[in-house]
Amino acid sequence: MSVNGMIDVNGPMPPAPAMLRRSDLHASLSDPVLDTMTFLNEVTMRFPEAISFAPGRPYDGFFDNEDIFAHIRRYLDHLAAKGWSDQEIRTAMYQYGTTAGQIRELIADSLRLDEGIDVPAESLVVTVGAQEGMLLVLRALIAAPDDVLMVSSPCYVGIIGAARLLDIPVVDVEEPEEGFSCADLEAAVVRERARGRRPRAFYVVPDHSNPSGTTLSPQARSELLDLAARHDLLIIEDSPYRLVSPGTPLPTLKSQDRAGVVVHLGSYSKVMFPGARVGYVVADQCIVDGSGRTTLLADELAKIKSMVTVNTSSLSQAVVAGTLLAADGRVSELNAKPASYYGEAMQAVLRQLERHLPAERRQRLGVTWNTPGGGYFLNLRVSFETDEAALNRAARDFGVIWTPMRYFYPSGGGERMMRLSTSYLAPREIGEGITRLAGFIAAETEQRSISGQSIGRGEHP
Amino acid sequence: MSVNGMIDVNGPMPPAPAMLRRSDLHASLSDPVLDTMTFLNEVTMRFPEAISFAPGRPYDGFFDNEDIFAHIRRYLDHLAAKGWSDQEIRTAMYQYGTTAGQIRELIADSLRLDEGIDVPAESLVVTVGAQEGMLLVLRALIAAPDDVLMVSSPCYVGIIGAARLLDIPVVDVEEPEEGFSCADLEAAVVRERARGRRPRAFYVVPDHSNPSGTTLSPQARSELLDLAARHDLLIIEDSPYRLVSPGTPLPTLKSQDRAGVVVHLGSYSKVMFPGARVGYVVADQCIVDGSGRTTLLADELAKIKSMVTVNTSSLSQAVVAGTLLAADGRVSELNAKPASYYGEAMQAVLRQLERHLPAERRQRLGVTWNTPGGGYFLNLRVSFETDEAALNRAARDFGVIWTPMRYFYPSGGGERMMRLSTSYLAPREIGEGITRLAGFIAAETEQRSISGQSIGRGEHP
Repeated sequence: MSVNGMIDVNGPMPPAPAMLRRSDLHASLSDPVLDTMTFLNEVTMRFPEAISFAPGRPYDGFFDNEDIFAHIRRYLDHLAAKGWSDQEIRTAMYQYGTTAGQIRELIADSLRLDEGIDVPAESLVVTVGAQEGMLLVLRALIAAPDDVLMVSSPCYVGIIGAARLLDIPVVDVEEPEEGFSCADLEAAVVRERARGRRPRAFYVVPDHSNPSGTTLSPQARSELLDLAARHDLLIIEDSPYRLVSPGTPLPTLKSQDRAGVVVHLGSYSKVMFPGARVGYVVADQCIVDGSGRTTLLADELAKIKSMVTVNTSSLSQAVVAGTLLAADGRVSELNAKPASYYGEAMQAVLRQLERHLPAERRQRLGVTWNTPGGGYFLNLRVSFETDEAALNRAARDFGVIWTPMRYFYPSGGGERMMRLSTSYLAPREIGEGITRLAGFIAAETEQRSISGQSIGRGEHP
Repeated sequence: MSVNGMIDVNGPMPPAPAMLRRSDLHASLSDPVLDTMTFLNEVTMRFPEAISFAPGRPYDGFFDNEDIFAHIRRYLDHLAAKGWSDQEIRTAMYQYGTTAGQIRELIADSLRLDEGIDVPAESLVVTVGAQEGMLLVLRALIAAPDDVLMVSSPCYVGIIGAARLLDIPVVDVEEPEEGFSCADLEAAVVRERARGRRPRAFYVVPDHSNPSGTTLSPQARSELLDLAARHDLLIIEDSPYRLVSPGTPLPTLKSQDRAGVVVHLGSYSKVMFPGARVGYVVADQCIVDGSGRTTLLADELAKIKSMVTVNTSSLSQAVVAGTLLAADGRVSELNAKPASYYGEAMQAVLRQLERHLPAERRQRLGVTWNTPGGGYFLNLRVSFETDEAALNRAARDFGVIWTPMRYFYPSGGGERMMRLSTSYLAPREIGEGITRLAGFIAAETEQRSISGQSIGRGEHP
């Protein structure tokens, strides 16, 4: 079975003539939601000269490339100090590792300190960002044809996209202007049950949600936990903006989860940096089979992960671990300065909106916005269609970028809304950006007036 | 919408009492194949004292932690030399990046030099190992309920596991002892068509396959390409062991793909290191929709990736890029020494097998094995059941580990075979390992004789 032959590096390969039909590809690839994540990640690159309120990215100013080397070094030193041999450390960095992750102890310690989440390391799975966590959790929990995922509308696109890949039905419950309504969710759950479907889990971003910016009140949290226990519904809690927001956050749903109904998704993309692609899932629920044998839900998620990414990059885990070690596990302290920075950025955007669109003017233009107390996002309602054509006009003619809110409505909505991200811009750009945005809004609204269209309030008055 | 409240870090959270039924989880979680990857990655940790022929891992001796720092540094310097500003380099490392990957140009250059694959960088998607590539390709291509994936049996578990997650039907074609048979594959394709199903793609490891160690002959490659074009079947080519094998490899299927039927999966796990979790897909096929608009298959895979992992770790991409730069893109040169090392390790295992199980003795014990010319694996047939119980006896009583071949047969088979990995052990361990293995085989066979069972030749004579 020995091998002979050689590679023909000189003979140029003609371009592949194969044509595949889009209709032969998986249905998710014809769903616009799958374009959204790439749009959000790449729109800023498409218009490099524009001021961009589009990307849900951390501010660049806190980053320093030398830190990457220092954090990896600190993790290696930490392993050595624990008594690991050079060989063992080399293996940890270079080889395939434990599917569920090699830094779970450090993450579990950190969750105990920062989030009131006290679970053994075995309940965790380290993932390639919270996005992989979503895919794992959906794949594990949604099993039967009648199982459905419940979400609020508007909703983060990552969970919708993951559901589309797995052909999982999504039921969206419209979120009122003032934020999540437990009664509306319960009504939807009851309605789905009556239709013969099984609402299996509800996905929620309790703190400074993406895209709406809303936060669940303490009462709403308590009602949601009760509802979930009552209706045998799991809660998928995703809360990446908690520790990058000013003030003391409300308790996580997981920390108040007496009934074991919450699966908590964690992300280091906002509190450390996105490029590392490290997140985790807290999944301490017990799984029992017919013969009474039990495992943890985390074990089951790891089995799925082994067929998605095998394990999370050891380099990425090392840099996250080194960062945790530098802060004695306190991600909150690590983010004290960024949280204050983001709080000021949100306030600066709100001040500039007020300045350029004072009450009388915004009433005339049909503009309103909400006022989140933290997080990366706020929503603006306008009187014209905020579609991609409008976005292109904003970028090209006014040098300003935002995100169409319609991307976040699984079954329609948000047609006259935009999401503004307040996190990414340097302070000096915010004033100029809002000046441009106000100019764009005025021009679009006047264009509509001239072309004889009435000025409405947007589709969710 | 401002937030008040505090985290109750003192009140201990009671253990979550939730119990979920396994029967309520996705069917893949009751399939033994999902345990296999974790087994393969973790079995060596479970028996730290044993000599392990189980893991398909690179040899540790080529690794040095300081190289990680040097490679990342080299990539940063490379970007600076290209004229990138500090800010741009920081963004490349820290922020969300292009979904399809930021080092595609370097990979495309390397493929041109090493593999005779000449495609534009836009045809590539950088993935979290080849495993994520498998998931993306299967998700894109397998769309209708009647679409099926064709594989050889035995087959790499990663592709079967990914198919299970996506509820994709797999049709396995038994591979004869001497290696892949194109006629058998064609017969199976015709049979599936007659059943009303559409064979959509055939997954194959052409060089030193995992687990069988077999390599497709030049003639088999050419027949397979013809068959694929004739039957509108795509080929998913996965060939991680090419450049870590001695001698000049045969041309990749992709380099000879005149009809555009090959999607090529790449992996840096064997030629650099697994911990980085970097692979790629070459997908230069055109996708055309009803209105004649075309995209590349790579664009579609990136859309799926955006909902699986968003993008591949920038740190991991940096270390791979730095390694490529250090070798002027020639992964083959980078692996000249390892390839020779692995070739010698394979020969050493074969020599030791011959020494401890000479012709007369192996005939008496009912033992045979194949003789791959490269790669990490060879197969051993024995006369007793090579199940997990036998593996535990081998580890506990003889201090030697191997992999049950049954893991690699999607619809049964391999019950009296073991896979030996020749890549991972240090040279000094090989002799002792095979001594122990021969002792174990003799004891098991005699045990069977004593308990009155006949000695057979294994299920695929």
